[in-house]
Amino acid sequence: MTDAHKVREDPEVTLLVLDADPPPRLGSLTGRARIVHGDESSLASQLPHADVLLVWDFLSDAVRRAWPGEGARPRWVHTASAGVDHLMCPELAASRTLVTNARGIFETPIAEYVAGLVIAAAKDFNGTNELQRQRRWRHRETRRVAGTRAVVVGSGPIGRAVAGTLTALGVSVALTGRTERPGVHGPADLPALLAGADWVVAAAPLTDATRGMFDARAFDAMRSDAYFVNVGRGQLVVEADLLAALSRRWIAGAALDVFEQEPLPPESPLWDVPGLTVSPHMSGDVVGWRDALGAQFLDLYDLWAAGKPLPNVVDKNVGYVPTHD
Amino acid sequence: MTDAHKVREDPEVTLLVLDADPPPRLGSLTGRARIVHGDESSLASQLPHADVLLVWDFLSDAVRRAWPGEGARPRWVHTASAGVDHLMCPELAASRTLVTNARGIFETPIAEYVAGLVIAAAKDFNGTNELQRQRRWRHRETRRVAGTRAVVVGSGPIGRAVAGTLTALGVSVALTGRTERPGVHGPADLPALLAGADWVVAAAPLTDATRGMFDARAFDAMRSDAYFVNVGRGQLVVEADLLAALSRRWIAGAALDVFEQEPLPPESPLWDVPGLTVSPHMSGDVVGWRDALGAQFLDLYDLWAAGKPLPNVVDKNVGYVPTHD
Repeated sequence: MTDAHKVREDPEVTLLVLDADPPPRLGSLTGRARIVHGDESSLASQLPHADVLLVWDFLSDAVRRAWPGEGARPRWVHTASAGVDHLMCPELAASRTLVTNARGIFETPIAEYVAGLVIAAAKDFNGTNELQRQRRWRHRETRRVAGTRAVVVGSGPIGRAVAGTLTALGVSVALTGRTERPGVHGPADLPALLAGADWVVAAAPLTDATRGMFDARAFDAMRSDAYFVNVGRGQLVVEADLLAALSRRWIAGAALDVFEQEPLPPESPLWDVPGLTVSPHMSGDVVGWRDALGAQFLDLYDLWAAGKPLPNVVDKNVGYVPTHD
Repeated sequence: MTDAHKVREDPEVTLLVLDADPPPRLGSLTGRARIVHGDESSLASQLPHADVLLVWDFLSDAVRRAWPGEGARPRWVHTASAGVDHLMCPELAASRTLVTNARGIFETPIAEYVAGLVIAAAKDFNGTNELQRQRRWRHRETRRVAGTRAVVVGSGPIGRAVAGTLTALGVSVALTGRTERPGVHGPADLPALLAGADWVVAAAPLTDATRGMFDARAFDAMRSDAYFVNVGRGQLVVEADLLAALSRRWIAGAALDVFEQEPLPPESPLWDVPGLTVSPHMSGDVVGWRDALGAQFLDLYDLWAAGKPLPNVVDKNVGYVPTHD
């Protein structure tokens, strides 16, 4: 890659980076691109002068707000995230701008995280920890994971990785997506699948079709011993409905890694709902993830600068990278 | 099996059952065997009159204490456990009595349990729970499980099941046993393996060769970020040495499901060692385990009554069922 950098110097390219923390490794683009750092307040005025936009601060929705403005727009937008909901807007969707995402970085860590939540729930790790604090030896029978049933909602790379890891643990997994296709159930099957599942995992992108799909009706469809996990986007879940479902014991437990509002405010009632595990949007973030995201962008940049086709191109009409396999 | 029961009535057989809670399903032996229940105080006087001994109370060491006495002895002893350390004594080892164990019941649940502990440690579930109690949103980077390295000490069915499940999660697993053979490292390799492992899992039977093998020297050999799990027998570990190793941060954390003394007394210092998870010997005990153990004994009884060879026969000289595959 060092050689490539020396050959294809293109200082006419302006790379606008939306970042709170500066991304690693960008220094290797020195001489190849003019790198401009932007923030939420400067973005609108910078967009017309950028060829490429790197959305490094993937929690910000500044792009969605700034994009519809006046002037030229970058030809390529890359986001250091799996989801693109924070940047998509009708104007970007209708434009000729290419949008790519961080497919490939988060799948395995998230799948491991979900598997850990499933086993921890099956084996009542929380109960064990509580009894340990009380110095109480109380043997309990727990659940066998192998032979249980899961529904994974979201048939993209993350949903597929979750399904693969749960399958490796002997779980019988049904994958659901926007449309029925081989190996993937369509929305029509969902109510029956929810009714039979020990584990329901939300790993879908946030789109108009998925927003709020886990509502009172969905939780009511689940078994009273079902466990719900959301590693997709907070807005997939109607949080008030989940809270009610847990309080009324419609389901046995849940774990949320993503929330309608992030960071979750200290005053949120979600922090101390019995049976609910709250984690700070970290399921995919293993040591080295920022380096991996930086390296991925550089690989894509090399392809883009060479005029080659990019992987990880988001279908802007559906809001995610279509899965072909 | 109902037909078999009717055909081979053998009321001359006396089945002595050592039990605290009565085992399920034994009623189906009515008419086929005279069933006598024993306890720790009555066992010595009952042994000479029994043809078969079912050790249902697998936490008791009454058999080991009563066996060396006077008189005849049962021809077959079955224990509703994987380990036989609680019943073996030189006199039983030297006798012609057949000893069988509960191989096949606990493997998958224990492997799931260990996998859950590994993921929970890698993803810092305990830290997340603590922060949730404090209503604090604090994103952390955690560890990827895939690509890490584990040593599983114990190459019997449980060790193999643990190795299989960790391998399915992408962990590179080394299995160690009493003797080196294809796919199994011998004791000579252990120090180097311990030095390279992210996860060290004790799943060995308790024998003279394994008693106290996890001592100060073993913990000193491990990496400071290593995590230790014991699902074998408490006496594999020198608990005082583990306590010191955790306190001095020689290793990062540990989980014990088995202890030198069970139940672990309320005054034990192990209950509140930072980084140590204490669980009450339950890793293999999933809902339905007692039924499964009862059904397994009945299957063995049918074979025994028909004069057929039994599976799960323990090599009394080494103290476990030899693994041939």
